[in-house]
Amino acid sequence: MSSVLGNKVKLSVFGESHGRAIGCVIDGLPAGIQLDFDKINREMARRAPGKDKTATARKESDTPHILSGLLDGITTGAPLAMVIENTNTRSGDYGNLMTVPRPGHSDYPAYIRYGGNNDIRGGGHFSGRLTAPVVFAGAVAKQILEQQSIAVGAHIKQIGNVCDSSFDKNNIRADFLHSISEKPFAVINSDIESEMRAFVEQARLSGDSAGGSIECAAAGVPAGLGGNMFDTVESRLSSALFGVPAVKGVQFGEGFGFSEMLGSEANDGYEIKNGKVSLISNHNGGVLGGITNGAPLVFSVAVKPTPSISKPQQSVNLQTMENEMLFVKGRHDPCIVPRAVPVIEAVTAFVLLDLMM
Amino acid sequence: MSSVLGNKVKLSVFGESHGRAIGCVIDGLPAGIQLDFDKINREMARRAPGKDKTATARKESDTPHILSGLLDGITTGAPLAMVIENTNTRSGDYGNLMTVPRPGHSDYPAYIRYGGNNDIRGGGHFSGRLTAPVVFAGAVAKQILEQQSIAVGAHIKQIGNVCDSSFDKNNIRADFLHSISEKPFAVINSDIESEMRAFVEQARLSGDSAGGSIECAAAGVPAGLGGNMFDTVESRLSSALFGVPAVKGVQFGEGFGFSEMLGSEANDGYEIKNGKVSLISNHNGGVLGGITNGAPLVFSVAVKPTPSISKPQQSVNLQTMENEMLFVKGRHDPCIVPRAVPVIEAVTAFVLLDLMM
Amino acid sequence: MSSVLGNKVKLSVFGESHGRAIGCVIDGLPAGIQLDFDKINREMARRAPGKDKTATARKESDTPHILSGLLDGITTGAPLAMVIENTNTRSGDYGNLMTVPRPGHSDYPAYIRYGGNNDIRGGGHFSGRLTAPVVFAGAVAKQILEQQSIAVGAHIKQIGNVCDSSFDKNNIRADFLHSISEKPFAVINSDIESEMRAFVEQARLSGDSAGGSIECAAAGVPAGLGGNMFDTVESRLSSALFGVPAVKGVQFGEGFGFSEMLGSEANDGYEIKNGKVSLISNHNGGVLGGITNGAPLVFSVAVKPTPSISKPQQSVNLQTMENEMLFVKGRHDPCIVPRAVPVIEAVTAFVLLDLMM
Amino acid sequence: MSSVLGNKVKLSVFGESHGRAIGCVIDGLPAGIQLDFDKINREMARRAPGKDKTATARKESDTPHILSGLLDGITTGAPLAMVIENTNTRSGDYGNLMTVPRPGHSDYPAYIRYGGNNDIRGGGHFSGRLTAPVVFAGAVAKQILEQQSIAVGAHIKQIGNVCDSSFDKNNIRADFLHSISEKPFAVINSDIESEMRAFVEQARLSGDSAGGSIECAAAGVPAGLGGNMFDTVESRLSSALFGVPAVKGVQFGEGFGFSEMLGSEANDGYEIKNGKVSLISNHNGGVLGGITNGAPLVFSVAVKPTPSISKPQQSVNLQTMENEMLFVKGRHDPCIVPRAVPVIEAVTAFVLLDLMM
Repeated sequence: MSSVLGNKVKLSVFGESHGRAIGCVIDGLPAGIQLDFDKINREMARRAPGKDKTATARKESDTPHILSGLLDGITTGAPLAMVIENTNTRSGDYGNLMTVPRPGHSDYPAYIRYGGNNDIRGGGHFSGRLTAPVVFAGAVAKQILEQQSIAVGAHIKQIGNVCDSSFDKNNIRADFLHSISEKPFAVINSDIESEMRAFVEQARLSGDSAGGSIECAAAGVPAGLGGNMFDTVESRLSSALFGVPAVKGVQFGEGFGFSEMLGSEANDGYEIKNGKVSLISNHNGGVLGGITNGAPLVFSVAVKPTPSISKPQQSVNLQTMENEMLFVKGRHDPCIVPRAVPVIEAVTAFVLLDLMM
Repeated sequence: MSSVLGNKVKLSVFGESHGRAIGCVIDGLPAGIQLDFDKINREMARRAPGKDKTATARKESDTPHILSGLLDGITTGAPLAMVIENTNTRSGDYGNLMTVPRPGHSDYPAYIRYGGNNDIRGGGHFSGRLTAPVVFAGAVAKQILEQQSIAVGAHIKQIGNVCDSSFDKNNIRADFLHSISEKPFAVINSDIESEMRAFVEQARLSGDSAGGSIECAAAGVPAGLGGNMFDTVESRLSSALFGVPAVKGVQFGEGFGFSEMLGSEANDGYEIKNGKVSLISNHNGGVLGGITNGAPLVFSVAVKPTPSISKPQQSVNLQTMENEMLFVKGRHDPCIVPRAVPVIEAVTAFVLLDLMM
Repeated sequence: MSSVLGNKVKLSVFGESHGRAIGCVIDGLPAGIQLDFDKINREMARRAPGKDKTATARKESDTPHILSGLLDGITTGAPLAMVIENTNTRSGDYGNLMTVPRPGHSDYPAYIRYGGNNDIRGGGHFSGRLTAPVVFAGAVAKQILEQQSIAVGAHIKQIGNVCDSSFDKNNIRADFLHSISEKPFAVINSDIESEMRAFVEQARLSGDSAGGSIECAAAGVPAGLGGNMFDTVESRLSSALFGVPAVKGVQFGEGFGFSEMLGSEANDGYEIKNGKVSLISNHNGGVLGGITNGAPLVFSVAVKPTPSISKPQQSVNLQTMENEMLFVKGRHDPCIVPRAVPVIEAVTAFVLLDLMM
Repeated sequence: MSSVLGNKVKLSVFGESHGRAIGCVIDGLPAGIQLDFDKINREMARRAPGKDKTATARKESDTPHILSGLLDGITTGAPLAMVIENTNTRSGDYGNLMTVPRPGHSDYPAYIRYGGNNDIRGGGHFSGRLTAPVVFAGAVAKQILEQQSIAVGAHIKQIGNVCDSSFDKNNIRADFLHSISEKPFAVINSDIESEMRAFVEQARLSGDSAGGSIECAAAGVPAGLGGNMFDTVESRLSSALFGVPAVKGVQFGEGFGFSEMLGSEANDGYEIKNGKVSLISNHNGGVLGGITNGAPLVFSVAVKPTPSISKPQQSVNLQTMENEMLFVKGRHDPCIVPRAVPVIEAVTAFVLLDLMM
């Protein structure tokens, strides 16, 4: 199990859903960065649950406490350590017996991988709650990127069969990305919000859950980041993005849409604009040959439906080795997509920071 | 630029399209493995060009010469180094002047990244030719995996608007995968071959190129490989797969199809079968929580259309900084998808070997 | 700045001497290990200051609090996070102005490296206090190694001109190593203790400090660990050992003594003993060609005198750029060697665990 | 077995003593560097054997052939691959039976580690011959460092009981280091040469070998390189230096001499000189807290006597598991120290380059 991300800046995430605390250590941050905690807390709030019916009703205290690496609000260059206390855990003794694995969850493979020793209470280290430290790290990264005029923003592209507008790939500005981040429900086309919410509510009422996808972009990324062959920007980003629970697909630019395109449609021509080399279109999502080309970075990720549903499911009892129907209880997100938006942004910002160093 | 792949087994790829040689060093291979060069050469031949009209007419000598790491055909545990001489390069002095970058290629971002020093003849180190050492490494990995009853195989899932059948995700056997690998044109549904070829031929005749997608599977993968959070099987595989030129998307199991699914449709239930835990379906493509669950590993990759087309394209002259129409000459693959099939398999086999160590 | 150690098991250390807390995250520990906290606390106590006059009179609360990775005292396979609160820090505002760098300390190079942003209070992240989490990690590693019959122990080899006996390199048993660890003053030859203490006391009274060396051994290490060329056991160990503050030399077996030996004296012959291959001598300290040979691992490290002395020293004022005499105040260890013994053991145990995985 | 060195620039070494070729791949070199092959060949010649009686009489063709990464003599940013053909190997079939391991060599531990599959002809991948690609990589690194006014040089500090003068640690200039490198026998005090040679000759005549030590320095290293805690300059350098066959100790500045020093003797004071912060002495060898302090980098390494001696030695027969006397034949270096000088420089240059990137 490796919960460490990054090459030059290293993020080490720890904690379990029902353990004492979750948190992270960020090693290799540049010294001398003044951190704005209002901004950090705003990002934490974007991910926090309990805001509306698309998310679980659980309340979590997501206040990050800094243990090291900061002096008078400025990074020292030493590892930045942060903890979030787990306050809302239930005290009952689970006994850590995982007898009936939940379909779609890590329960069964983790049982094999860790010999039944992993903490399964609330998903343990596999819990979506572990994305809180990731959002913290991303919030720190965003502030450093901002100084270099790089902005990262994402939106809900699809939930169920309801789709939002897509980014205008070759024309994405920082202020536009910020305006989306400020929305409580991150869609470009606000008219679609109620329809999406209705879809999720219907899934929730029927004891089910909904999947979707998220489109993310970074504006202001300079040309020349990344490299060939196995250190492409796509490699770095996808590797990190698949670390976000429920992400099952990553595509850059037109992605799987390229399958039906001709080269003449897919290639992005060049032109001189204001004395600079500029791209006429951005089908490739800002990356060519694994290296950024100066156009906005644009990609999308597929998010599978929350595996926790209240409908009965076929499973097995690992003790008796017999089939057993499973009825999952508890408070769950009927759709994780809205809360995953700031997480995807955070991962992207962290990877970009690592690439910029 | 990092052309190094892997954690415990490290693949270091070198060479340029028109340089003296291409090759690789594989560091960390287990000692005592008898290598079957007939099998290796068969894999090399699958990738080699010049076989039919979907590929370039160039002839390349893709015979791997072992420099070290092998004694009497058996691995010694020391780095396995291999070279392939470049025999079919043209002698003309390119002068390495890259004045008009080709749209869709790495030309422009590489120009920025390497300050104009990168070898652009035939794409240099960015050339698809560099996948030959990758196929070699994959062929070695496949032989080691075979001893552990793991088989890897892929097929052309789509070219343009023509689609092949998909794998039956929960029922993929080694011999089936081998039977596909032996086909000169790797599709499950042979009836579709002529239609796909016709699509490519039409693109070729109009000076254009076609994209597509490839579906890959691994049978026999044990449960418990990989880990959470940033060392998931998906992270490792996607990172490597995006190292293959033209790959722009990677999705596991239903991938982007999950967006429109409900949890009750997406979750894979469990049942006891022959006294063992077994999955009822395999929508998740054999990975849950980043860890293999014992079902076949199934994923697909999007392949963009070959950027080299003979149709005129809008570009710029980097010396004069003026717009300029570009007419690309030379012999190119009108569709890279068929030749990319063994490359995707090779990358997959190498990553699985690294995970198994 | 990278405070991350290890390949398969990763130790990430954080904290500053006068910050809120110090601690570490250990990523990649095997699941299912029952941790004995009595043993851990005993190791922590060995390193803790305030025990006698060779060490600083400061009292530090070195109680490790587990935040994650442990359930009912058993490792879960998830990252093990631990914090130690800093209780004995002084509240005065240092203002973080580092004007007159202390000779022999990291002050000046860290000022350059971190642009004056590093926390200099008590040495910040460079403080010897940061070895507390390292001792914790080592205590965990020792327990896992113990299950494989590997024991690690070290002793004070030299302080000033007073020398302890050396290990009998080819005959080191686990119980012997344990018996040394239990001593409050870790020397083989107890008669030498008072002489060493007297040397340190004399240095202390004259406002000075003393250096020394530590010899460390590991018994029960199997043959075949490590590898050639840049992944030798010596490479791994030395890299980690030089991470311990004040260590300025590392030598294996006879080390620098080899300079005056002939090959016939330095080579360790083989013999069959109890039906097994055995070494007749162990001049090479248990490593040949970078790989363990089954003999005990034996090496020693040089520890420079504590740079904090109360004698006046020549320094400069970085603000005025003028020469300035420096008078260092505060409570310091007149000799760090005794407290460094468990730290050297801890680093060794952690590296061995990483090699064994 | 990992023959890969470096973080940002990666050196992958391959080959065996009696295999087809040896060589290396350097991944991550900056683009646009004009390489001077006269300088490279001069470095290769410094390491090559057969020059005098301190070394083996074998002749080796150490001409590096570039396979990739260079265009018109300028680095392209793509991996730089180099091979040296093995021309002087004997054709006899060794059958790879390693029955009687040579004392002091890697034979026995490698037999265990690689299950008897490693190539033992001439030491295989463990052969000192593998330092030829390292010298090549160092020669490349030196040229890049030179552009930043950094020079690396080393000398024979000791052979047997004969000692050379030491570097004046706080006063080492580039031209002085170059002047030593140009000597066929690298000592500061030329008067000592004949005595050292006599010592080696006497060892040779008695079928024995001699050990020694090498002192190395780098002038012009800027303050602020490296970092705390596990990424210290000492960690990086020692890890790489222990990859050189026969190196058994590494010490920085006074190293083990610190054991007998007081803090007031060991600390290096500061003074303002020509308006800059300067060190009054350099006992710490240019590194404090793991970070360079602007003084010359100075360290020394212990080199054990060549294990290949013609005197009979006690060993065992691994097939019969009985004791057996061993008589080693062949041409060997009676003292490896002189030829190791350019290797130590090369490793140092490569690590410094990696740190500078």
